Amino acid sequence: MFSRPKGTRDFLPEEMKKRRIVEEKLRRVFESYNFKEILTPTFESFQLLSKKTGEEIRRQLFVFKDHGGREMGLRPEITSSVVRLYLNELKNRPKPLKLYYFTNCFRYENPQAGRYREFWQMGCELIGSKYSIADGEVINLAMDGLDAVGLEYEIHIGHLGVLKGIFKKFNLSEEKELDIRRLIDKEDYGGLRDYLESIESSQELKETIFTLLKFKGDREILEEVKEVLKDYPLSLQALENLEEILEFVKKEDIIINFGIARGLDYYTGMVFEIYGKKEGARQLCGGGRYDNLIELFGGEPTPAVGFAYGFDRIMLNIPDFEVEENVILIVPVKKDKDLLKKSLKIADELRRRGKVVEVDLMNRRLNKALNYADTLGIKKVVIVGERELEKGMVLVKDMESGDQIGVKLGELGEFV
Amino acid sequence: MFSRPKGTRDFLPEEMKKRRIVEEKLRRVFESYNFKEILTPTFESFQLLSKKTGEEIRRQLFVFKDHGGREMGLRPEITSSVVRLYLNELKNRPKPLKLYYFTNCFRYENPQAGRYREFWQMGCELIGSKYSIADGEVINLAMDGLDAVGLEYEIHIGHLGVLKGIFKKFNLSEEKELDIRRLIDKEDYGGLRDYLESIESSQELKETIFTLLKFKGDREILEEVKEVLKDYPLSLQALENLEEILEFVKKEDIIINFGIARGLDYYTGMVFEIYGKKEGARQLCGGGRYDNLIELFGGEPTPAVGFAYGFDRIMLNIPDFEVEENVILIVPVKKDKDLLKKSLKIADELRRRGKVVEVDLMNRRLNKALNYADTLGIKKVVIVGERELEKGMVLVKDMESGDQIGVKLGELGEFV
Repeated sequence: MFSRPKGTRDFLPEEMKKRRIVEEKLRRVFESYNFKEILTPTFESFQLLSKKTGEEIRRQLFVFKDHGGREMGLRPEITSSVVRLYLNELKNRPKPLKLYYFTNCFRYENPQAGRYREFWQMGCELIGSKYSIADGEVINLAMDGLDAVGLEYEIHIGHLGVLKGIFKKFNLSEEKELDIRRLIDKEDYGGLRDYLESIESSQELKETIFTLLKFKGDREILEEVKEVLKDYPLSLQALENLEEILEFVKKEDIIINFGIARGLDYYTGMVFEIYGKKEGARQLCGGGRYDNLIELFGGEPTPAVGFAYGFDRIMLNIPDFEVEENVILIVPVKKDKDLLKKSLKIADELRRRGKVVEVDLMNRRLNKALNYADTLGIKKVVIVGERELEKGMVLVKDMESGDQIGVKLGELGEFV
Repeated sequence: MFSRPKGTRDFLPEEMKKRRIVEEKLRRVFESYNFKEILTPTFESFQLLSKKTGEEIRRQLFVFKDHGGREMGLRPEITSSVVRLYLNELKNRPKPLKLYYFTNCFRYENPQAGRYREFWQMGCELIGSKYSIADGEVINLAMDGLDAVGLEYEIHIGHLGVLKGIFKKFNLSEEKELDIRRLIDKEDYGGLRDYLESIESSQELKETIFTLLKFKGDREILEEVKEVLKDYPLSLQALENLEEILEFVKKEDIIINFGIARGLDYYTGMVFEIYGKKEGARQLCGGGRYDNLIELFGGEPTPAVGFAYGFDRIMLNIPDFEVEENVILIVPVKKDKDLLKKSLKIADELRRRGKVVEVDLMNRRLNKALNYADTLGIKKVVIVGERELEKGMVLVKDMESGDQIGVKLGELGEFV
């Protein structure tokens, strides 16, 4: 007996239906902002995938060689691919470019609740605008999507420019900067303290970072943070940018959090994460500004901002809902060819009218077919008998009430 | 500069939109037959994928080892995965089980028109019914889908039982049977002749096979074929089964073709293929009955029948169509914060009413923004100015007529 690969999932009909409904709602929100869907290949060159995604994600890549010996990987996230596509195909289009995607990604994770080796992301990239109104729109879109699917959430907004301004003053290398961001992203503050000791950083650097990480709250904390960072001109600039962005964020109820450092190395400015309430699967969404990535990939310097929903996390956090189904079962009372053919024809006509119709394909006797309908929660059974057909009629059985009445074939569509 | 892996594609916004529209139409047809969507992982164990798919597909597998050393492959088709899922999760549900899928598959093909290393299939499996009405329904569904998307096509229906009946009489091994089916599938009749010579097959076997392959036509040829195969009882049984299935196929205009042998090894009975008109990308759909596969995979003997569309082939064959778009661009005349915020608010209200709205995110002056709208074919521009706002109004410019009129904010939704 074969089993499914570790850390992956099969989606059964009931769950798949719900996923499609949620997908469709989110899709409509992206499209209402005039984002356009694109799709890139499932695998990309290893070089592309390992370029700016960060050490941990690099370690988790599914890598293989194609038959020509080229090293490939299954994409662990989509932004790198979208930037590649932008440079290959779209860079000359008018700006801003507003692209969205819904697709699967792959990481060699230790399987646990909310973490899968194949998982789904829906997200967007807004390419070409450096203005803070663009950051604001993207944050608003992220919240609109979650509102559309009825989720309760908490949004945390930070700005990497604030940390970068501190690093800059102490001339930290990019490598050290990324190490520190990684520890902050994991909220590993003990590890961060050890790391800062190990690189013999100054007392001031340590204090400033830890003081900054303590600030979490609404817009009002910004004045205090400015006071703390008054000797860090680049950090102050970043704070002003953040303040401006927040002007465009339509909800008051946000949390400013300088501990948002993102697991991906390519972010440069505003960053945000959104959390739900499901233990072990809280992070629903993450994103931010990445103004250097396109240049790093060989393009003209081009500002960009985007985010992605963890679609599986959304499904885990969403309140369960019922999917209403109206299936009609057609049962010929005798299994002779003509009656079967007539049943198929009736099914055909109902399907053309948009109905969901199943014809008995198991050669079942009527009472067995009714049991089957009952088990599956089918509400209407159309019984096709020779005698009724001669009068241009069929019997319709309402499975809930048990009532059974004759209906003219021409009126069946309105009736079931 | 990075490029996309050989043999793969990026789908740009215009094409992606069309693909989603076609997908949705096909999906509705599957669902009208009460097929339910499922989804399996992108990769599966190598053993599963190589079990019954056939030599050529096995050669084309993308194979890799996971970090635990297990050999995995990207799925080259979906039926094996669906059978695996059925046995793992669904085997105790009432029959028939009607499952459909829409997903990507991977084969290491030589890139050419209509053949890609990552390609999309939409298809279904009907599990649990041995009756010919089930074969009929599946064929009707395949045709209904193509009708729904406006394709012209030719459907060829055959039956592997006819060939199998011949093989049986001459006691051919399974290996030889598969070799012969492969050559027939490729229409490599020269190769077939050589092969039959090489295995020293009898004159009668050769003649019977080549005579059979010559028959192609409507239902009327069946009588002649019966005459040719009168000494092959299993073949005659298969012909009767085919005749019964054809009774349930709703279109008269079909082609009986015993050269349909399918590239996948697991088929056992009725097989069919549907062709479009696009040179080099003609095969739109293939499927048939596979009554042994579930047992081979370790389950109870369970009959099944299914098919898959080559979704990319459908897209290549479909007549091109226009997608109507109504995008509204909102342009604040001055870039001060309050006017920008007001513009976002107007956008928000329109989006809630189902409109597709873009706000100028590029800090453009009005005339530049109008040029941008023109380039993108945006039809309505909402101009947000301080003076009009004071009166609770905005200006709406119709980009086609050039007319510009004042509209009350409360009435904007009906107007754009």
